[in-house]
Amino acid sequence: MTDTILSSATKEVVIGFDRPFVMIGEKINPTGRKLLAEEMKAGDFTRVEKDALDQVAAGVHMLDVNAGIPLADEPALLAEAVKLVQSVTDVPISIDSSIVEALEAAIAVYEGKPLINSVTGEEEVMERVLPFVAKYGAAVVAVSNDDTGISEDPNVRFEVARTIINRAADHGIPKEDVVVDPLVMPIGAMATAGRQVFELVSRLRTELAVNTTCGASNVSFGLPNRHAVTGSFLAMAISHGMTSAIMNPMHREVKAAVMAADVLNNQDPNCALWIAENREPPADGDERGARGGRRGGRRGGRRGTATE
Amino acid sequence: MTDTILSSATKEVVIGFDRPFVMIGEKINPTGRKLLAEEMKAGDFTRVEKDALDQVAAGVHMLDVNAGIPLADEPALLAEAVKLVQSVTDVPISIDSSIVEALEAAIAVYEGKPLINSVTGEEEVMERVLPFVAKYGAAVVAVSNDDTGISEDPNVRFEVARTIINRAADHGIPKEDVVVDPLVMPIGAMATAGRQVFELVSRLRTELAVNTTCGASNVSFGLPNRHAVTGSFLAMAISHGMTSAIMNPMHREVKAAVMAADVLNNQDPNCALWIAENREPPADGDERGARGGRRGGRRGGRRGTATE
Repeated sequence: MTDTILSSATKEVVIGFDRPFVMIGEKINPTGRKLLAEEMKAGDFTRVEKDALDQVAAGVHMLDVNAGIPLADEPALLAEAVKLVQSVTDVPISIDSSIVEALEAAIAVYEGKPLINSVTGEEEVMERVLPFVAKYGAAVVAVSNDDTGISEDPNVRFEVARTIINRAADHGIPKEDVVVDPLVMPIGAMATAGRQVFELVSRLRTELAVNTTCGASNVSFGLPNRHAVTGSFLAMAISHGMTSAIMNPMHREVKAAVMAADVLNNQDPNCALWIAENREPPADGDERGARGGRRGGRRGGRRGTATE
Repeated sequence: MTDTILSSATKEVVIGFDRPFVMIGEKINPTGRKLLAEEMKAGDFTRVEKDALDQVAAGVHMLDVNAGIPLADEPALLAEAVKLVQSVTDVPISIDSSIVEALEAAIAVYEGKPLINSVTGEEEVMERVLPFVAKYGAAVVAVSNDDTGISEDPNVRFEVARTIINRAADHGIPKEDVVVDPLVMPIGAMATAGRQVFELVSRLRTELAVNTTCGASNVSFGLPNRHAVTGSFLAMAISHGMTSAIMNPMHREVKAAVMAADVLNNQDPNCALWIAENREPPADGDERGARGGRRGGRRGGRRGTATE
């Protein structure tokens, strides 16, 4: 049993083996979202607030927050976005940036125990990120690439993960606070991408006993009907032991695939979450997100269930 | 590599490792279908013909045909149904009955190499079914229960499968012509049913090198939004090595989950089947089966792809 405990000021979420899969909302990310990028750069966080509320209403347990905008003051923007999201929701946050200063600025204003997304196996990155992860008592996503880049060999990616876990331990960070991202490539570009991840997740769990996460949407990049591909990918990954993912809960079939996989992997006792989720018929003709959207908000909903 | 080759008079389908998953249409089965049962008993096979054509249009590679009607002359009905289905479609058939005489009557009129569904590990059943499977050169589904019933212990079910495979060999039936059904229980009644099947499928493949199948819909019995559960189940089973299933291809999300799992498990080279399946938008507002229904019929469609 490896429990990664994250928290906001008032709420805990646990990523762990044999628990309901933790869904981390991906939407607050200006990459590829021109309008959001322009608004955030201009100090307008209206859409960030809406995306936070919508995803929580759709049932996410955590929110990923990214402010990666070219030529912007990313540390200030990320800190501002994190503060805003914490003011309107109570789910723990995955603070997401490739800029170390931005991670550090945001962790300084965060209330609770965040997930820092991410540290790589690059020497300089490890030595800059791990000290403040340790200082603030946070958890961290370990991405399996290093100074040589992203290897296509899953054995190399496994060893990079092991290196980061060991280095984190040197800094006093226990392995339950390191969540490994085995790196998910688009299946349309790399036919073995799925099988690699399934095998890596299984090995990371059985050999290193760590929790895992990934950016799930990447697997279906460029394919038609991509949400069905992402949904099947997550169900398959869950059956090999993956315990969380950054994903879009607004896509009905993706969320349904994850919750059904929890049932099938015996992670939803008495099918209680599944039955609650599917009890009510949609209020109108729009099935997309309607079931999840019915509950949620600050107090209601399924968010807390991962801690039960 | 273990290839189970089935055929009709004109078409071959191969169930095998690392090939596209073989979908066997489940609908021609009067169990729980009162109207169909009454019609078949009265000699009216109109609905059987429609169900055959609809499922082939929806993309199945094979059709399961069952005529289990209480107090009816099942051997005569099953033979009649098999003849009719062979006259209107060209996919191979899974001849499905728990009555040995019915299996024998239907195999006698079948053109090609059918899948006989099924033999159990019960002593009397093995000694009655395996001789005519061998005589006709058919393949057979081995269901993992024996004279002691259905064990809840997956290790017992594994040993029953091994017993049937060995007994089949005694009768001259090679292991590639034995497709094991590890038995899928409703997840709502047995929380470990999914994990048991995933582990059994993996062991059957790595230790005994046999193909596998199951009655997929059973897993979601009694649950709301059950097609999503069946779809995730099949994706997870495929990622552990399952190679075919008796299922309903008319349920859009079940079929999509299977085809996406083929992509993610590297069983759909260049995502060609996935892209072809999802190229065209639905012709009308009804998404259910519309994509599959566009092609199909006797000549078109995806049916033959499992042999490629």
